[in-house]
Amino acid sequence: MVTPLSGPDELDVEGLERLVEHILAGGVHGLFLLGTTGEGPSLSYKLRMELVERVCAQVNGRVPILVGITDTSFTESVDLAQYAHDEGASAVVLAAPYYFPARQDDLFRYIQHMAAELPLPIFLYNMPSHTKLMFEVDLVKQALQIPNVVGLKDSSGRFVYFQAVQLALKERPEFTLLVGPEEMLGATVLFGGHGGVPGGGNLFPRLYVELFEAAMAGDLETTRRLHAQTIRISTKLYCVGNYGTGITKAIKSALSSLGVCSPTMAEPFQALDSADQDRVRKVLDELASHEPEICAVKPA
Amino acid sequence: MVTPLSGPDELDVEGLERLVEHILAGGVHGLFLLGTTGEGPSLSYKLRMELVERVCAQVNGRVPILVGITDTSFTESVDLAQYAHDEGASAVVLAAPYYFPARQDDLFRYIQHMAAELPLPIFLYNMPSHTKLMFEVDLVKQALQIPNVVGLKDSSGRFVYFQAVQLALKERPEFTLLVGPEEMLGATVLFGGHGGVPGGGNLFPRLYVELFEAAMAGDLETTRRLHAQTIRISTKLYCVGNYGTGITKAIKSALSSLGVCSPTMAEPFQALDSADQDRVRKVLDELASHEPEICAVKPA
Amino acid sequence: MVTPLSGPDELDVEGLERLVEHILAGGVHGLFLLGTTGEGPSLSYKLRMELVERVCAQVNGRVPILVGITDTSFTESVDLAQYAHDEGASAVVLAAPYYFPARQDDLFRYIQHMAAELPLPIFLYNMPSHTKLMFEVDLVKQALQIPNVVGLKDSSGRFVYFQAVQLALKERPEFTLLVGPEEMLGATVLFGGHGGVPGGGNLFPRLYVELFEAAMAGDLETTRRLHAQTIRISTKLYCVGNYGTGITKAIKSALSSLGVCSPTMAEPFQALDSADQDRVRKVLDELASHEPEICAVKPA
Amino acid sequence: MVTPLSGPDELDVEGLERLVEHILAGGVHGLFLLGTTGEGPSLSYKLRMELVERVCAQVNGRVPILVGITDTSFTESVDLAQYAHDEGASAVVLAAPYYFPARQDDLFRYIQHMAAELPLPIFLYNMPSHTKLMFEVDLVKQALQIPNVVGLKDSSGRFVYFQAVQLALKERPEFTLLVGPEEMLGATVLFGGHGGVPGGGNLFPRLYVELFEAAMAGDLETTRRLHAQTIRISTKLYCVGNYGTGITKAIKSALSSLGVCSPTMAEPFQALDSADQDRVRKVLDELASHEPEICAVKPA
Repeated sequence: MVTPLSGPDELDVEGLERLVEHILAGGVHGLFLLGTTGEGPSLSYKLRMELVERVCAQVNGRVPILVGITDTSFTESVDLAQYAHDEGASAVVLAAPYYFPARQDDLFRYIQHMAAELPLPIFLYNMPSHTKLMFEVDLVKQALQIPNVVGLKDSSGRFVYFQAVQLALKERPEFTLLVGPEEMLGATVLFGGHGGVPGGGNLFPRLYVELFEAAMAGDLETTRRLHAQTIRISTKLYCVGNYGTGITKAIKSALSSLGVCSPTMAEPFQALDSADQDRVRKVLDELASHEPEICAVKPA
Repeated sequence: MVTPLSGPDELDVEGLERLVEHILAGGVHGLFLLGTTGEGPSLSYKLRMELVERVCAQVNGRVPILVGITDTSFTESVDLAQYAHDEGASAVVLAAPYYFPARQDDLFRYIQHMAAELPLPIFLYNMPSHTKLMFEVDLVKQALQIPNVVGLKDSSGRFVYFQAVQLALKERPEFTLLVGPEEMLGATVLFGGHGGVPGGGNLFPRLYVELFEAAMAGDLETTRRLHAQTIRISTKLYCVGNYGTGITKAIKSALSSLGVCSPTMAEPFQALDSADQDRVRKVLDELASHEPEICAVKPA
Repeated sequence: MVTPLSGPDELDVEGLERLVEHILAGGVHGLFLLGTTGEGPSLSYKLRMELVERVCAQVNGRVPILVGITDTSFTESVDLAQYAHDEGASAVVLAAPYYFPARQDDLFRYIQHMAAELPLPIFLYNMPSHTKLMFEVDLVKQALQIPNVVGLKDSSGRFVYFQAVQLALKERPEFTLLVGPEEMLGATVLFGGHGGVPGGGNLFPRLYVELFEAAMAGDLETTRRLHAQTIRISTKLYCVGNYGTGITKAIKSALSSLGVCSPTMAEPFQALDSADQDRVRKVLDELASHEPEICAVKPA
Repeated sequence: MVTPLSGPDELDVEGLERLVEHILAGGVHGLFLLGTTGEGPSLSYKLRMELVERVCAQVNGRVPILVGITDTSFTESVDLAQYAHDEGASAVVLAAPYYFPARQDDLFRYIQHMAAELPLPIFLYNMPSHTKLMFEVDLVKQALQIPNVVGLKDSSGRFVYFQAVQLALKERPEFTLLVGPEEMLGATVLFGGHGGVPGGGNLFPRLYVELFEAAMAGDLETTRRLHAQTIRISTKLYCVGNYGTGITKAIKSALSSLGVCSPTMAEPFQALDSADQDRVRKVLDELASHEPEICAVKPA
């Protein structure tokens, strides 16, 4: 979930409420707060806690809430996890600390120590494009032995890695393997992945839910059709502006067009300029024409 | 196809003959010589030409032959292409020149100039792990306009990139899009890719042919079963020794165990040591137990 | 300055007091807290503030104190800077936010916005090995126009970059250009650099002070002799254990041998094991034999 | 030395003759052919051999000639070395083979095997920006034991690495350590380096000769003055066009302005466009104004 902002470090409270209902209305099976698309590392702790508090209260048990606690400071991660637990979150999500280039054995000990402190189940978050560190397959195998490590979200974009982790999971079938890039959701679920955490779900939640369900059911035709739409979204919408922020700028701009929330970005980034926002609106129209049922542009 | 060697820069002529028949017996639709798995850049021009000559003569039109001409020297690439044409090859395969860090516009002009000199259709070869350069989606779109550029082999391992290229190909449907990593063959073909160039096809050609055919036919169950075997091969066989050579050492060692050809590597690499060769033999037995029909270990 | 710890996120208060006096006794011209060697990003905000408070009080104006405020959260950086100002620090040090891959124009705006909020002069901190972002020469030139940007600490290790920045500085001669890697201190100062921030100054402060003074005075012979000692320290001491933490583990271990402070590291790292600590002790003896006056090993 | 070309793979024979005399007139101590600035890997073997033949004949023993034999094919390297030997070259220069990502032990064996085949002394060439491989300090130490490995040219730009190699060389004092980036020539020679291989020596050979001699003599004032000019050349001339070719485009364009040789580049690159060539001319005038004696622009 993106974090709606009315200023660089100020929650867009009304936009947040609309966004949560918009996403839940799409039938999603959970919410992931404060990940990369959620600009978690860019926000103050005060704001992170306010977000967790508000979303937990609003969702009120309708779906599980996962909270990103990735940080370079061990203690701040633990404190945020404790807060998330107290507010009613279901699990936390933990990437590698991203300043020092740690080794695999350092990372294993780090996960072990963190797990011992945390009051909630942990999803590992493999995000090498931003942390510059991989949770290698052997490390994931080791981490599987830690009781409250319950899953992995892999945002590496490496299909071969994902398949290798999946094969290793036969040792612990209750472990949950999720894919980050939404363009891989259909393919990974068809081959046995357990789900995904699509950033595009902020915009078109029903699209990804239906794609997931079609792939789970082995409905190849529907999977292909909906997958094709995810690729259109990826290649036409997310490239607007072509920024290092990845997809967040375009998603926030599109949500703004749909009347859901503000396009404001956290530092060090800025919202799309108006020329790019116009392009986003045109792409939204085109996307709606391909899948009018689940990608309609109805300003709130 | 790997290049069987009896010395670091000397062809294993008998092994080569056995290997070609072994692969063709598996029903493959073509042969790709002098790629990365073929150690092309490590071989002398004399050997590269001898290989092309022998394979063209032996195959004698049974399947098309594609010849890797990637080089840092434009002229040497052109000369090898001319030789391949004269011996009866069907197409050439061209990665980015891999010494200087060229820009996308440099690469486009390079492809344009190369295409103007070549007597054969060209497959582009996106191989960023070794050339350190991507053929970005926009460059591929541009290159599609060059008449004798007829396809792309993408070995980036990036599923999202592959899908983006595929969407761009609607502009030129006769263009052929192949995937490099064999672990992605099933998934990419299910979603509309045209085929693959699996290194493992040296060992188990029928496995990849049947996987391709199942995916083309939309037979999800068979695709999943055979895909699972490719992941076993990838995670159990190719990791033996865990070398920068990628999969070639393990494949050559396995081919040696099967009595097909020598395990000798071109400089700067060495064959697996005997402990690793023993591990390869054990993995082969395990692989055969999963798919006895198409991955049997019958020493020649 | 390293941050002495008695636990992964707990200050070694007595060690800290000894360390500050040890460094000041060496004649240094300032102290830099909470940099990379200070493990700043790994520490809780509570600890960071306690460190700033204690060191400011202890130093009590004897030398200027620079405080690292690098963070992925803009607001947390500003808050720490405000705290540092209130405690009496002289300046803050700011690297690029290190989670999202920002562009140069994003970074410029970020510096601009930060500068507008900060109550203290700013040193930029170019640290691409950890932030994965360069402050390119053109960005530094632009940033020179911002009134309270007063200097750059370059830890890129790229001599050519350093020289290019230095040439650009003719536009603003009061700007201070410092080098990070202590192995480059002699050479950069000989060619007009203004100083350095040597991690080894925790151990042998007088060595680096004398090296700086010799280079400033153009005393080539002394510069060479002391420079040779910095290279011995670098190649013999810092490589012990050979960790991604860079030099901090070895420095803390050596400080522990000297009786100054604890070798404890912040998460995700551990202190050297006892075999490596023995090696550190032997290297200290060898280093002392080369420069007995300024690198003596006198356990406190 | 750049390779003057009248077409993408055709020698500019008259330009070559002028260039060789221009450089020798500057008092250089040797010529290095077919390195990175010489576009060696981009040229056909026919052209490489013609270049070696012509330069050896023209120089006729006036200075030693070093020939770059770096290639991905072991055999082609050996053959070129044999040719260079027969034509009268003094040594060969060998970087890591640059297609496959070899490990340090692979590289050591490669150097060992190469040394056993070569009829000439070998300079190692550390060029990680283009080969993507470092000759790590431990590998250099090992390679020092091979009798005909006589030196290292380090083009990594890493001052710390260079100093570490230098310290390791105490074991074999007759080994020659040269620096690639000309911006580091003054500093490395002041601290005990043995010389450099400056690309700018194509243009202003006397500048680098005098800089080297001043640094060898410990003449700090002259070293600083001439060093400052190398930084002007680097930051004002080499950045024109800002291409991945590094400095070669700008040097060839400047040589063309000086009437020495053609600006033609080997594939995949093109000469500077006319706007950039105009900028080069203006920069040449400015450079001449700083050092009129040794950087004068006198069209031939």
